[in-house]
Amino acid sequence: MDFGSILLMLVVLFVLAAIGSKIFTHFGIPGLIGEIIVGVIIANLVIGDWSFLGMLGIDMGNDPSQNYDILTLFAELGVVFLLFSIGLETKARELLSVGKAAMTVATIGVLVPLAAGFVLMIAYDGNIHHALFLGAALVATSVGITARVIKDMKVLDTKEAKIIIGAAVIDDVEGMVILAIVVGMTSYGEMSVSNIALIATEAIVFVAVSIAAALWVVPKIYEYFRKRKESRPAKNKGSGLGVNALILAIVVCLGFSWLADMIGLAAIIGAFLGGMLLAEYAHEWNLGERIEPITTLFISFFFLNVGMKVDLGSLASVSAASLAVVVILVAIATKYFGCSIGARLGDKSLSKESRNIIGFGMVPRGEVGIIVAAIGLATGAMSSELYGAVIIMAVTTTIIAPPIFAWAFAKKYPHCKIA
Amino acid sequence: MDFGSILLMLVVLFVLAAIGSKIFTHFGIPGLIGEIIVGVIIANLVIGDWSFLGMLGIDMGNDPSQNYDILTLFAELGVVFLLFSIGLETKARELLSVGKAAMTVATIGVLVPLAAGFVLMIAYDGNIHHALFLGAALVATSVGITARVIKDMKVLDTKEAKIIIGAAVIDDVEGMVILAIVVGMTSYGEMSVSNIALIATEAIVFVAVSIAAALWVVPKIYEYFRKRKESRPAKNKGSGLGVNALILAIVVCLGFSWLADMIGLAAIIGAFLGGMLLAEYAHEWNLGERIEPITTLFISFFFLNVGMKVDLGSLASVSAASLAVVVILVAIATKYFGCSIGARLGDKSLSKESRNIIGFGMVPRGEVGIIVAAIGLATGAMSSELYGAVIIMAVTTTIIAPPIFAWAFAKKYPHCKIA
Repeated sequence: MDFGSILLMLVVLFVLAAIGSKIFTHFGIPGLIGEIIVGVIIANLVIGDWSFLGMLGIDMGNDPSQNYDILTLFAELGVVFLLFSIGLETKARELLSVGKAAMTVATIGVLVPLAAGFVLMIAYDGNIHHALFLGAALVATSVGITARVIKDMKVLDTKEAKIIIGAAVIDDVEGMVILAIVVGMTSYGEMSVSNIALIATEAIVFVAVSIAAALWVVPKIYEYFRKRKESRPAKNKGSGLGVNALILAIVVCLGFSWLADMIGLAAIIGAFLGGMLLAEYAHEWNLGERIEPITTLFISFFFLNVGMKVDLGSLASVSAASLAVVVILVAIATKYFGCSIGARLGDKSLSKESRNIIGFGMVPRGEVGIIVAAIGLATGAMSSELYGAVIIMAVTTTIIAPPIFAWAFAKKYPHCKIA
Repeated sequence: MDFGSILLMLVVLFVLAAIGSKIFTHFGIPGLIGEIIVGVIIANLVIGDWSFLGMLGIDMGNDPSQNYDILTLFAELGVVFLLFSIGLETKARELLSVGKAAMTVATIGVLVPLAAGFVLMIAYDGNIHHALFLGAALVATSVGITARVIKDMKVLDTKEAKIIIGAAVIDDVEGMVILAIVVGMTSYGEMSVSNIALIATEAIVFVAVSIAAALWVVPKIYEYFRKRKESRPAKNKGSGLGVNALILAIVVCLGFSWLADMIGLAAIIGAFLGGMLLAEYAHEWNLGERIEPITTLFISFFFLNVGMKVDLGSLASVSAASLAVVVILVAIATKYFGCSIGARLGDKSLSKESRNIIGFGMVPRGEVGIIVAAIGLATGAMSSELYGAVIIMAVTTTIIAPPIFAWAFAKKYPHCKIA
């Protein structure tokens, strides 16, 4: 392993991301958009045989270089720690209080894009595999993007933010189940009905058990150790559990991410639930502030990597470009309307402004759409044209949604600005 | 890349390291020893075809697995951020105030082990290549190990600690120059006298320029931005440079590590000097506390990895074991006496207790000895027997020195205990 080459890649990308972020926040636009655009630029900076990424030892092709693997790992860890820190600020009680609204937003926000994607491809080329996979790719909201905007604007304690976070977690679970079903139906995987039922059950049990643990088990453990600590001379200034609270947090974050990944969910869902487990004590242990430097180190690589996946060259043909445009419009419209209708049905007290916030907040697809597309391409269920359109859709919704979302938020909460 | 497998490896190793550290600190022994011993245990936990590391997807052989590459990267980043945070607490002025003593300690502490290693191998097998490489492998102190103990004991502001840190940086530079010379003399590399002179000059210029920049350039830049900030409405709560201080620190840390690596020094030397550049402002920007979570995430993997390199099986033969024992004794004795004599010559005011602290503090060889041995083995200048002995020496001095060093420190400063 060439440590020097990895250091060079990390420092160059980190500096460019910071510059991109700085320029955009200067104009009141979320910094992550600047990071994504830096990613788009550097990935497409090719002059003859020379490419900017090649200079950094990055090859993103079918046989990616070690440097790109490390960039991807840092990106994944970044979004894992981001969702963990969002979880740290999300108490299970509060999540349950918006539970009904979040569930309705998630479910209608999943069904409308699923149906629209299916119908679109049946009309476009009549291929049922294409139709199923496009539907599945349009389903899941990228909670990472929205969460970052919510965090940057410091509006996590608003009702809208809580509904969005809750709905994004639920629709990710629903999205994973739908992906399993679609893979089974296109019979490229080895999915049976019982397998699908198993995955769905595991996912629901995992979420339910985590919430139950946060409500009833963790407080008991905390009380036990607090009493034991009180009865002994003060020695540990840590968590009172006899371990450093930061170490405990890192273990919970990585452990729950692994658990989620193992049972077939996205790692970030586990990270979020792990954070929620510690949310009641995050303030006392100062966990939010202590996790932030770790997130800062990693998270830019996630947004850079989203941008780097955009191949501007693939937009060259007219038919590919038109398909991409239609998919983008369908993706935005169906998610926005599905979720704002869901919000109206789920909680009658939400104003039009609030429904707008929720609708726009759920639009970004980001990594989950990309994962679905990658599986579709690998199993042959998606054409490379459709794959390109989905990637462009995932990235475009990610880029377009945050400024609109931030604007919708600022309309209702005028004191909230992009930091 | 299998993210799930990497997460599992990280969380299992992180938990085991935390347990090892906890057990040892409970008995007043530095926690890093517990982490190293956990590393030794898990690397040697093999039952038939089953191995603990294999279960975690780690293969450390000639063609290491991706999981092991990532473990190594985390280990390197850990020691880089550790040395950066040591640098943050080391002001250039204070380093210069112990400059003469540090220089004498480093230089005599380099010459004595170099000569002893050379003579030992000439007497043992008469091979001049073996002799040159063993001499070079005995030269450089592992500042990472000692720095961690100094940090854990919170004695960084003592004169002894400053001399040790300064001397360790100087002897690392000297060690790299000697390595270049030895590689040139054994004519396995493409080193000429002018190449060696170039490396030596680069190293000395890099250190001198960094210290000069810390003394005269960085304060000017800081003043310029502070005045500019004062003349405008307060908007950034960051560093006053218009960027987040944490982001600046990460860039300086990774950038200087890369610079050092590029000119042929160890990356950690660059990280230390980068930290020193920001030392005057670290308190104001709260950098020590903000870098700590990053170090905590990575550093355990460094000490685990040191332990994992110990192959207990290679100690099986009597001749290998005796060679290893002799090399260990020579390594400890020559460094201890060389540095305490250096301390006496460099600063007459140092008491016997202080010279003891300095002598023991310089004993651990750790990663630099291992790097020399790896180059020696790869170029054929070292036998595998001698390579094994050097690895065992590096690890053993690393394990043995900190408790003795901590004891010597506690003898002079009784209020300082292992946290």
